[in-house]
Amino acid sequence: METIANNRCFEGEQLRLAHRAESLGCDMHFSLYLPPGARAGNVPLLYWLSGLTCTDENFVQKAGAQRYAAEHGVAIVAPDTSPRGDEVADDPEGAWDFGLGAGFYVNATEAPWSRHYRMYDYISEELPALLARHFPVDTERASIFGHSMGGHGALVIALRNPAHYQSVSAFAPIVAPTRCPWGEKALGHYLGPDREAWKNYDTCELIRAGALQLPMLVDQGEADNFLEEQLKTELLEATCADTGYEATIRRQPGYDHSYFFISSFIGSHIAFHARELEKSVSDD
Amino acid sequence: METIANNRCFEGEQLRLAHRAESLGCDMHFSLYLPPGARAGNVPLLYWLSGLTCTDENFVQKAGAQRYAAEHGVAIVAPDTSPRGDEVADDPEGAWDFGLGAGFYVNATEAPWSRHYRMYDYISEELPALLARHFPVDTERASIFGHSMGGHGALVIALRNPAHYQSVSAFAPIVAPTRCPWGEKALGHYLGPDREAWKNYDTCELIRAGALQLPMLVDQGEADNFLEEQLKTELLEATCADTGYEATIRRQPGYDHSYFFISSFIGSHIAFHARELEKSVSDD
Repeated sequence: METIANNRCFEGEQLRLAHRAESLGCDMHFSLYLPPGARAGNVPLLYWLSGLTCTDENFVQKAGAQRYAAEHGVAIVAPDTSPRGDEVADDPEGAWDFGLGAGFYVNATEAPWSRHYRMYDYISEELPALLARHFPVDTERASIFGHSMGGHGALVIALRNPAHYQSVSAFAPIVAPTRCPWGEKALGHYLGPDREAWKNYDTCELIRAGALQLPMLVDQGEADNFLEEQLKTELLEATCADTGYEATIRRQPGYDHSYFFISSFIGSHIAFHARELEKSVSDD
Repeated sequence: METIANNRCFEGEQLRLAHRAESLGCDMHFSLYLPPGARAGNVPLLYWLSGLTCTDENFVQKAGAQRYAAEHGVAIVAPDTSPRGDEVADDPEGAWDFGLGAGFYVNATEAPWSRHYRMYDYISEELPALLARHFPVDTERASIFGHSMGGHGALVIALRNPAHYQSVSAFAPIVAPTRCPWGEKALGHYLGPDREAWKNYDTCELIRAGALQLPMLVDQGEADNFLEEQLKTELLEATCADTGYEATIRRQPGYDHSYFFISSFIGSHIAFHARELEKSVSDD
């Protein structure tokens, strides 16, 4: 592991690191914010999963999250959004919604994608173990959130691993990738034509299949250009209504899909997770 | 004037605009954050001047300022850092510290720079008039701040126009451009070899020449790689000590020159200006 940047920020440290990712078979970068409280002992951890085209840097530069992380004494790790490197297969036409920058947080089963595209394992297994080994974070007290494709990733990973996360939240998530163009393209390539296999990576399907209740918060901008065709928040609302799954789903008038939207509510999300992480201590 | 972007942010509006700048003789972009309070009437205005290589977008995306601007009910305008366009002369070697992205907030007097490089007039005259005409801002209640080259610009423009700004602040400003490589290169080209003319654009020289007292706040990171050779905060400290000019100059241990530094203290600067702008109302 190599530290490639270290900037003091809100009295803590904004780190950028490079390492060999075994699950992905390539070198990866990730960013990690350590609040000032991490100098005194292990702190709880938030995983942030970014959306299409992003690297580990967008969130760190644009969300304004460090202030809230410092206040609440939580670390935030922001991984990249796909495997990287010359040897990693990409969309043959260089599309931005598939391949590099668009790993969709799945374990691909189809060639050539299955060789490197194992972001599900990377986020849910390799990264927690790596962080616990090298940094003052308590990976037993963790929550997960993300934006768009990363909101999908956060919801899916939390719903499939409810014992590993105290809470989950998302900004403008793709809630039903089995039923939107972005998701159908990505899952079709990564997982092949059998749509049954896709359901393991679909938030609405996982809830309908009986996923355990987790504290869940979703914000969706009503001026988001992707809402109707790709994000389909109404499918999550209907799924929760049908199943009794409790989620706070907030439609925010006037907000779009950008980081200006994320920055406006990131403080609310971090406070939400901090409350749930605090409860996890009280429960002990 | 054309609105080229409008994103809701902290219940206000983050705008990006394009217009013909008469003082610069070219088309320019600038960004303007309007807090939610601007829907009810004119709000006070902060001018943010960015540093070398920046456009009007860096601050808007990276500083996390909108939250504080919304809270305090102030607008923030972020202009570009030089004239722009194919017809605008640039450093013949394409250097990043001179020419495009490096206007140094002067009115150039030397050819070929004098044709377009008139950022001093643009910031101090054209932009205020334009904003007053088109937006719900009160340009009579204004303060100014900036970073690095933009910290220099903010200090110089405020010191030369003390009636137009309630307060001034800077992050890692170039306090003595007549005595550092960045400044000597820029002022030498823009203003010619007569160093007497340079003094009108040097914060320390303006204070020594008897500039009126304004509320002034400066933050400087002690891990800033440019501190020793270019920024020379100690010259401002000595100038203030010698002349009795009152300024709050804070050295911040561990912080570097990046937006992670700016974002950590931007809230403190906006609160400082908001307090001074509030006083200006009480004085009326």
